[in-house]
Amino acid sequence: MPTEVTFRSDVTVEYRDHMGSDERIVEAMLVSTDAAAAAADLAKQPGRINFLMRDRHGSPFEHTALQFVVEAPIFVFREWHRHRIGFSYNEMSGRYSILPATYYVIGYDRNTIQVGKPGAYSFEPGDPELQEWLIGDMKEESLENYARYERRLEKGIAREVARMGLGVNIFTKMYVTLNARSCMSFLSLRTKRENSTFPSFPQREIEMCAEIVEDHFARIFPLTYKAFEANGRVSP
Amino acid sequence: MPTEVTFRSDVTVEYRDHMGSDERIVEAMLVSTDAAAAAADLAKQPGRINFLMRDRHGSPFEHTALQFVVEAPIFVFREWHRHRIGFSYNEMSGRYSILPATYYVIGYDRNTIQVGKPGAYSFEPGDPELQEWLIGDMKEESLENYARYERRLEKGIAREVARMGLGVNIFTKMYVTLNARSCMSFLSLRTKRENSTFPSFPQREIEMCAEIVEDHFARIFPLTYKAFEANGRVSP
Amino acid sequence: MPTEVTFRSDVTVEYRDHMGSDERIVEAMLVSTDAAAAAADLAKQPGRINFLMRDRHGSPFEHTALQFVVEAPIFVFREWHRHRIGFSYNEMSGRYSILPATYYVIGYDRNTIQVGKPGAYSFEPGDPELQEWLIGDMKEESLENYARYERRLEKGIAREVARMGLGVNIFTKMYVTLNARSCMSFLSLRTKRENSTFPSFPQREIEMCAEIVEDHFARIFPLTYKAFEANGRVSP
Amino acid sequence: MPTEVTFRSDVTVEYRDHMGSDERIVEAMLVSTDAAAAAADLAKQPGRINFLMRDRHGSPFEHTALQFVVEAPIFVFREWHRHRIGFSYNEMSGRYSILPATYYVIGYDRNTIQVGKPGAYSFEPGDPELQEWLIGDMKEESLENYARYERRLEKGIAREVARMGLGVNIFTKMYVTLNARSCMSFLSLRTKRENSTFPSFPQREIEMCAEIVEDHFARIFPLTYKAFEANGRVSP
Repeated sequence: MPTEVTFRSDVTVEYRDHMGSDERIVEAMLVSTDAAAAAADLAKQPGRINFLMRDRHGSPFEHTALQFVVEAPIFVFREWHRHRIGFSYNEMSGRYSILPATYYVIGYDRNTIQVGKPGAYSFEPGDPELQEWLIGDMKEESLENYARYERRLEKGIAREVARMGLGVNIFTKMYVTLNARSCMSFLSLRTKRENSTFPSFPQREIEMCAEIVEDHFARIFPLTYKAFEANGRVSP
Repeated sequence: MPTEVTFRSDVTVEYRDHMGSDERIVEAMLVSTDAAAAAADLAKQPGRINFLMRDRHGSPFEHTALQFVVEAPIFVFREWHRHRIGFSYNEMSGRYSILPATYYVIGYDRNTIQVGKPGAYSFEPGDPELQEWLIGDMKEESLENYARYERRLEKGIAREVARMGLGVNIFTKMYVTLNARSCMSFLSLRTKRENSTFPSFPQREIEMCAEIVEDHFARIFPLTYKAFEANGRVSP
Repeated sequence: MPTEVTFRSDVTVEYRDHMGSDERIVEAMLVSTDAAAAAADLAKQPGRINFLMRDRHGSPFEHTALQFVVEAPIFVFREWHRHRIGFSYNEMSGRYSILPATYYVIGYDRNTIQVGKPGAYSFEPGDPELQEWLIGDMKEESLENYARYERRLEKGIAREVARMGLGVNIFTKMYVTLNARSCMSFLSLRTKRENSTFPSFPQREIEMCAEIVEDHFARIFPLTYKAFEANGRVSP
Repeated sequence: MPTEVTFRSDVTVEYRDHMGSDERIVEAMLVSTDAAAAAADLAKQPGRINFLMRDRHGSPFEHTALQFVVEAPIFVFREWHRHRIGFSYNEMSGRYSILPATYYVIGYDRNTIQVGKPGAYSFEPGDPELQEWLIGDMKEESLENYARYERRLEKGIAREVARMGLGVNIFTKMYVTLNARSCMSFLSLRTKRENSTFPSFPQREIEMCAEIVEDHFARIFPLTYKAFEANGRVSP
């Protein structure tokens, strides 16, 4: 009996750990004889962080770390892994593990019709019939895809070969470690917001990841987040 | 009529450009008042490069560049993109382009049976019947895969959505720029050689890319390549 | 007789090599089946490069290289070396070489009086007497500095120890290799310009280096440079 | 009355914070459905970490952070800042702050006589008279150096200009954040040990920093440190 396939239209970004705080960022900025004491001056923290953000002094934000465990389809990881600087990754390997039977299918509310011109696309809902057809088509394809994968494994084919046909909508999992600076670079590029100085057009599925990352970022570094929002979401 | 699907069991790594030479590496190492003149002393070049390699003085090798245009399946690019330092990438995007109908299928001689334990696998040939079955199965899956992709596009589904089910064996294309130092790091990890100080167990398909990269590297930087081979293929 | 000391109020940034062009940047952006042919469409090049710059698609600019040989005082190299990403350095080492007797002293026209508040300083000329005194004082100090250095070396003190007292205004030399993207990041931070979206307040001496780098950059990548200027000198 | 100058023959590397542990490294390596539980299997931790180290799987070690506040002379920071990957720095700036009056002078036991050939120097003690002379000479120079610096500041010269003559033995201060992988790369290059697979010849003063970093590293990541030692101090 084949493994049951799970379909998901969401992603998981689980908080794992972090180091540092708004105060640490100010402390690293001051780096004077009594930096820790000076950084603790709460009244001056917002202004100091806003100054760093506005004038793009980025290095103090690097003295922090954020760590997440992410579950998302391969096509999302492909985009995420293009972020090279200030990002560390460890992803489950299809060479050593059998990938679990979880596939991404779009939700009914996922816009599927592309309008506009290259570089500035926007997306609109498909008609209900088309959405339903597509969801069914994706499920059917994924079921067949995993069945072929399992059949190859059962015949003794090596994992690294059996996985060659897997669809980029299969889920995989990774540990990702970044810092407050690289996090802002990620948020700037992977969310679409009205208040951005520089417009971005991310694929919706990586934006879903970015939105969860952003919630954690805003919670852990509230002053930095406020200054990021106030200064056009430009990574310093 | 559906687009005809092309099946390949090889990869393309096309030389596009480079900057620098063995002599330039020596020049950057000397960086003295008359570095260019001193570097031109041909008799001393091999010894100087061997010294850099042996004692792992890596920075002089960075004053060079190599550029390739690569065509390979997604599962190869997924591994390649994990090289972050000293690597620049621009890959064809399935969000903006329709990916061409080219898929990777294993050749008859591709070892498909995995033996040994995790971390030190080796691979052996499957029996001819199994190989034939697998090749047929991969072709069948790829044909269906592309047919679904085209059907979605015909129905007006956005490219970034239509591509979600594509198999990781579909071909894509990228420009990659690296330097002699990051190139040696790549070769060290992505080839399996007897004379390596540190053993590597690359997937065969990225090793096929690495072998072509290595040919170009050996041609453009012959003394550096010789020292790399003589010192256990350890990236300095 | 002590070595004669040379005083300089300028810096040297000598072009050594480069790879790529505006056309190559467009080619790496297109990365389609016929990228090279498409990139050669001269009429479309400016618009394409402007699009990359405006929307901050930075990666195509990385498929290029620029190489310089720089002579400047240590306090300039200290700032330059803080640029980590997309920069390779090889600097003359005071551990292995005897540093030549060349020191930086300010020119008569160097603004030496600081006005304004931290983070937004500007500088004004000192009165002529003060300028003259300072120049004399710097020369005197440098002469004594090199004399002590030589005396230690003559007594057989190791180079790495003898150099410990050298002033940060002594000249040193390095090879630096960067790409069009990291070059724009450098220019953005190390020049002070009215048309910058984000203001920078570089020390004049590194700006002197940046101005020469900028001339070479504008010559080698004219369309990219034009788009950089037109879009607020923001590194993409 | 001039500021009193402090002379030091040691350095300060103060632990500030860290994230992660040996267990987290194993967890990031496993990245499977139940990675956290599996990583907690204490009996398997040493073997797993040793496997990563031996076969140079470096990425799991990056999911950690270490943070120090360092006080050392400029000539040490110049070497330290050449470590670009996996290192974040914030240093006190002589443009904005007046540097405190602390200078490095060698201790009586600092070897000052260089023997051997380039690339493989070793150092021996100078005779007592020479050592004493050198220490006196360094102190005298430093006193004069700081006196000139203060005089310029008193005359209203801008900080960024007044500091131009400071000796590279003046102390400065920085925050540095790294991870377990970049830490091992630093230790490998900046200590001289018999059990190193690849020999290094660091200047003694940066080795003094590295030794303190190593103590903290060994305390926080004991299994990783043991595997580093057991595998020739090669950064994975």
